[in-house]
Amino acid sequence: MTASQPRGSVCLVGGGPGDPDLMTVRARQRLADADVVVVDRLAPTDGLAGLAPRAELVDVGKTPGHHAVPQEQINQILVAHALAGRRVVRLKGGDPYVLGRGGEEVEACRAAGVTVEVVPGVTSAFSVPAAAGIPVTHRGLARSVTVLTGHDPLDPDRLEALVRLGGTLVVLMGVTRLAGLADGLLAAGMDPATPVAAVERGWSPTQRTTSAHLASIARACADRGVTSPAVLVVGAVAALADDPTLCDAPAVLLEVATLARPSG
Amino acid sequence: MTASQPRGSVCLVGGGPGDPDLMTVRARQRLADADVVVVDRLAPTDGLAGLAPRAELVDVGKTPGHHAVPQEQINQILVAHALAGRRVVRLKGGDPYVLGRGGEEVEACRAAGVTVEVVPGVTSAFSVPAAAGIPVTHRGLARSVTVLTGHDPLDPDRLEALVRLGGTLVVLMGVTRLAGLADGLLAAGMDPATPVAAVERGWSPTQRTTSAHLASIARACADRGVTSPAVLVVGAVAALADDPTLCDAPAVLLEVATLARPSG
Repeated sequence: MTASQPRGSVCLVGGGPGDPDLMTVRARQRLADADVVVVDRLAPTDGLAGLAPRAELVDVGKTPGHHAVPQEQINQILVAHALAGRRVVRLKGGDPYVLGRGGEEVEACRAAGVTVEVVPGVTSAFSVPAAAGIPVTHRGLARSVTVLTGHDPLDPDRLEALVRLGGTLVVLMGVTRLAGLADGLLAAGMDPATPVAAVERGWSPTQRTTSAHLASIARACADRGVTSPAVLVVGAVAALADDPTLCDAPAVLLEVATLARPSG
Repeated sequence: MTASQPRGSVCLVGGGPGDPDLMTVRARQRLADADVVVVDRLAPTDGLAGLAPRAELVDVGKTPGHHAVPQEQINQILVAHALAGRRVVRLKGGDPYVLGRGGEEVEACRAAGVTVEVVPGVTSAFSVPAAAGIPVTHRGLARSVTVLTGHDPLDPDRLEALVRLGGTLVVLMGVTRLAGLADGLLAAGMDPATPVAAVERGWSPTQRTTSAHLASIARACADRGVTSPAVLVVGAVAALADDPTLCDAPAVLLEVATLARPSG
């Protein structure tokens, strides 16, 4: 790199839940100016070629039958392109700092002396429930919301804490471990009748919501073949879902209708 | 309203943390098309006249010495404008469904037969910490994040649950009750050396971060005159803040540097 060459940079961009119109104006600007866009399977890639017309696309995501590029190597790719003088956009699904390992990428850039910017995005943790009609907080139903990932093995102490805290629990990347999570919450004392919704492919034309009680959600999701990507919502607000496919006995319908009323 | 008159509608738009470029593309579209924009003191109003050139602006926010318009009356304003055939945007700070009473506004519209849409936004709960360099989750430091409001009186049981859960705690609208919250967390067993950051006016030119330990954050914020709007971050990730103004003894600097290292 000569002294006259423009210095490269890395911008971590939150791409939102998938609909390109739910990207921020700044995200669109950074994509339009990018020389390189590094994406994985969680990034919103619909229309990306048009949004980043000048950019080389680098896919570091997992494809069926192949391993994803390890995080350490992703960090190296970002740094190498930036050190070569390129404007690099690391496009991430949702928000870069919500269970997306964005902090590690920022640290790697800083350690290499690379200028790094973070553009926050619309987090899937809150916007995918919204796509299904579920407000993650709601007066009388939920005064707080906790977000975690299904990859996180929850010990009994943390499960009990979640139950005692109340509020809404949102689980990202939780479909494959749903049965274990539900069993753990039940063992920790959560009401088996707690409403749960699994929202697949939020903001896409094939979005689908599966609703049941905590005691039956794992079976319901297995029966319907619920797959990733999906966001799980556990708590009273899950009963507010639009047009849920209810997988419990008819008695649930009455309860859901009751919960859906504003309760002051 | 005659049959040929266009039907009105209400769109709840998440305006993000304040910087107009952190609005989504859809938020900008809805503002551009709006006949009426209803805002309060938390909504991002910089440049709003340009973004919504056709719209009448209705301010329902609290101004010093005056009471805010009650929620029930806000609901009525939204419904009345929509029933008169207007395209109404209810512009909210952050995301409409994160502690913003958006769910109540949706219910009021539906009860009145008014078409209502929700456009999620970049939540202040995650993006204001990011503006200060704080990732709300980070490998080795925080595997979950809980969001609540300072208006929420936390009983000892919920405080203990928060402490046992671990992870990051983000408190919106928490400055005026900070002393009570910190005392409550300490009484519930949280480590007095837990890092805390208060980020005022995130994404504005006058943004300021005040960092201290849990045991001293209330005094530090009082000494510096920290005021609303501010977002509080409680947990190990708070030590990752860029250029924090550290208000503890020099020993804290060492600890912050240690925490800031990636821990695997």
